[in-house]
Amino acid sequence: MIAVNCKTEVEKWGVFEISLPGPQAGNPFTEQHCCGKFIGKNEVVETDGFYDGVGIYKFRFMPSFEGEYSFVLSGSFLEGEVAGNFIVKPASTENHGPVRVNGFHFAYEDGTPYFSVGTTCYVWTHQPEAIQKKTLEELAKGYFNKIRFCVFPKHYIHNFNEPISYPYEGTPCEINKDISTEYSELMKIQPGNKWDFERFNPKHFSHFENCIEKLCQLGIEADIIVMHPYDRWGFSQMSKEQDDLYWRYVIARFSAYRNVWWSLANEYDIFPKKTLEDWERYASILCEKDKYNHLRSIHNCIPFYDYARPWITHCSIQRQDVYKCAELTDEYRERYQKPVVLDEIAYEGNIDQGWGNISGKELVRRFWEATVRGGYAGHGETYIHPQDVLWWSHGGELHGDSPTRIKFLHDEVLAKIPGYGLKRVQRNWDESAATVEGMNAGNYYLIYYGFMRPSFRTLYFDDISSYQVELIDTWDMTIQDLGVFSGKFDVKMPGKEYMTLRITKV
Amino acid sequence: MIAVNCKTEVEKWGVFEISLPGPQAGNPFTEQHCCGKFIGKNEVVETDGFYDGVGIYKFRFMPSFEGEYSFVLSGSFLEGEVAGNFIVKPASTENHGPVRVNGFHFAYEDGTPYFSVGTTCYVWTHQPEAIQKKTLEELAKGYFNKIRFCVFPKHYIHNFNEPISYPYEGTPCEINKDISTEYSELMKIQPGNKWDFERFNPKHFSHFENCIEKLCQLGIEADIIVMHPYDRWGFSQMSKEQDDLYWRYVIARFSAYRNVWWSLANEYDIFPKKTLEDWERYASILCEKDKYNHLRSIHNCIPFYDYARPWITHCSIQRQDVYKCAELTDEYRERYQKPVVLDEIAYEGNIDQGWGNISGKELVRRFWEATVRGGYAGHGETYIHPQDVLWWSHGGELHGDSPTRIKFLHDEVLAKIPGYGLKRVQRNWDESAATVEGMNAGNYYLIYYGFMRPSFRTLYFDDISSYQVELIDTWDMTIQDLGVFSGKFDVKMPGKEYMTLRITKV
Repeated sequence: MIAVNCKTEVEKWGVFEISLPGPQAGNPFTEQHCCGKFIGKNEVVETDGFYDGVGIYKFRFMPSFEGEYSFVLSGSFLEGEVAGNFIVKPASTENHGPVRVNGFHFAYEDGTPYFSVGTTCYVWTHQPEAIQKKTLEELAKGYFNKIRFCVFPKHYIHNFNEPISYPYEGTPCEINKDISTEYSELMKIQPGNKWDFERFNPKHFSHFENCIEKLCQLGIEADIIVMHPYDRWGFSQMSKEQDDLYWRYVIARFSAYRNVWWSLANEYDIFPKKTLEDWERYASILCEKDKYNHLRSIHNCIPFYDYARPWITHCSIQRQDVYKCAELTDEYRERYQKPVVLDEIAYEGNIDQGWGNISGKELVRRFWEATVRGGYAGHGETYIHPQDVLWWSHGGELHGDSPTRIKFLHDEVLAKIPGYGLKRVQRNWDESAATVEGMNAGNYYLIYYGFMRPSFRTLYFDDISSYQVELIDTWDMTIQDLGVFSGKFDVKMPGKEYMTLRITKV
Repeated sequence: MIAVNCKTEVEKWGVFEISLPGPQAGNPFTEQHCCGKFIGKNEVVETDGFYDGVGIYKFRFMPSFEGEYSFVLSGSFLEGEVAGNFIVKPASTENHGPVRVNGFHFAYEDGTPYFSVGTTCYVWTHQPEAIQKKTLEELAKGYFNKIRFCVFPKHYIHNFNEPISYPYEGTPCEINKDISTEYSELMKIQPGNKWDFERFNPKHFSHFENCIEKLCQLGIEADIIVMHPYDRWGFSQMSKEQDDLYWRYVIARFSAYRNVWWSLANEYDIFPKKTLEDWERYASILCEKDKYNHLRSIHNCIPFYDYARPWITHCSIQRQDVYKCAELTDEYRERYQKPVVLDEIAYEGNIDQGWGNISGKELVRRFWEATVRGGYAGHGETYIHPQDVLWWSHGGELHGDSPTRIKFLHDEVLAKIPGYGLKRVQRNWDESAATVEGMNAGNYYLIYYGFMRPSFRTLYFDDISSYQVELIDTWDMTIQDLGVFSGKFDVKMPGKEYMTLRITKV
């Protein structure tokens, strides 16, 4: 009889985990395989187990229903099956389940709308513990409810330090002090790497999972970038078989966490050796192996991936034009018929690079332009820092003006709309107007003026209804009740930039 | 013998004018015709004379060469010809002749480059004298070297007052106190107008000429909008014959002024009753009757006129996209192969309309984005005013932040380039870089960063040359010498918006 190491209770959408001892000899990652079958009244889920090192094999499962479950584990190293039972309790208050697509928007599985306000800290989990702690403290302030970050370490400007761990057994190249910062050099594998791409370093992954969990506790979705091209070690240029092994391992480990989103790649289009066939193959592995259908997308450098592909749940866009991106959100919705997330629209900061040196005001303007077109923008921060700790890559401290305004947008505006999402309405050319999706369309408007500075506006909706009009200063974060109006009416405005009118039928 | 009323001397590119008495009976505008032939060593020019009221007929001529000239006048009311002589002296210091096209740019006829920095005061000449005086005082400050304005009065929001004179004999409709400000109503002829569209009011035109002259003394080009659609009196909806009569009258009167540019229309595309054939017919009259080939264009509301038409000398563009226009300047150059003038890219102000409520900063940014792409932007100002005197329409006082920055751009940057114009160079995606046209290309760069805020930039031109680098703060209007550099080098920048690097090979 094998000792089964597991709890007897888990909450709905929690992680139910079982550990079993098994062989350490040979290469357990490639020579052993195991899987778990989890049986409840409403679902039967089969997932791959994985080797976690030091002779331990783990099986994870995220139940989607309450009640009694049983499990049956099998594996190449088991003689016969291992079985057991557990109870799934109701979800705790803050647990709304994984995020799902809801038309052009998102909602948690329990139906609670989810309005994405994301940020990017590409390799925050790979930084020294003090910086990770600081990152989590900043994230705990509730500015963001999604964060993009990478499994693999990153070799990039402002980011040549060693990660705290590597995903494989082996030793890294030595970093050349005079390493080139030329863009074209950032994807070149350096000499001196010694990796066994068939032997994972489980500590790297368990730490990563720990970070996913901490994010989950903060109510933040983990938008995991599984592959990326900025790499001196060779993780972006493994063989097809090694890639597939990695994908299966990652899925087996991470997919039971309810806050996981899959980003197949950052800047898929600039990998030196990957083809569209590769991306499609990874997607097929993901669709097969992730039994929970976490959200899936892939992020561009220049050409968009074809977001119409059936496996893609939402667009994850990097702007293609210096001057116009958030303003195209509604066109992207129309083109792809999916939620539009603009994960990179330039970051607040002052570095030399144009993708990382816009003002907080300009970034917040882009958030609003995306919002009123029924999409979701993303934050990042790239201020020059004496110790080269930039939020966009390392996490650490936030220094910018935009996070509080983004939180204001989310908490005071998006979270209070009478519906599950916004969509653009065509009213006048010189405003960006939204109403809500669904039944309340026409009972509620947000009209954003961006860099336009009207001292008043003349409004008309219909002859019979009354409308409460509020003036939202999206930068100063004030909301002023202007009164109730009907018919054709003028509202006074302050002649300043970044104003929104919120109009609610009463 | 008829008494010839004229001077015996005129300067090159000045107006030589002769007055003759003639019949007042009947309709001198339609029943009489007259013309002058002006003969110098290098040119023979035949122009139409015109009836100036009270029995006076006038003939005007702009000589393009120095030396002795003779003239011969003929007319339906003259028995035989009237002849005489005059001397053309050298142009005075400030007189460089009419502006001509020079590739994608402009130059005065004497070869002096002309860098257009225009403004718009649609009906400044129709305002009470005190306002006109104020307008000229503001213009005398040298912010602008071109101004767009209309021959006909304008019926538009903020602009329902009566003009000081009308172009025709007759009486206007009474203005309804409750006149609609709906856009669609602004082109409706109101009841009660009584005009004789075959009898001009010469005072209206002589006053207008007086204004053209005053602009000329200030070194400002008069970009005359000959027709426009915002009209309660019927001037925009005359018959074909009446239109042609008007065009011939306007050309006969105005074309001898060297600072005249012809804008066939403001917003040609929204006239209720004009067709493309009409515009082409006016253009053919203009090409035939204006013997000096003043610059010719036509301004859109939404669709551009086909600026590739041979009679069009330059583009006169109203932006088509709320978010992007100046940034398309180089595309427009490529498309039309002519100078690009962006006459309407939203005005600095705070009125309710989106075309008139951007900040000075945003307007100046657009000027620079156009400039470094080898084009020319235009100014306008629309601040709410207690007496409803808005620069864009009436002239008066300027209140905005942009004019001094526009003057800075012209005087300290454009006027000092080592060449006759700028053109875009493709360097990096995150900057807008220009070099000069012609022989000095590559010896001089302007690199504009717009809303990007780099703290430094790494530059490289070649391995062997040295470059002087200056930092231009386009908003604070400072120019700082950063030193001389060569090879690949970093320049420190302030991490602020609206910076330009000026780079000169030494």
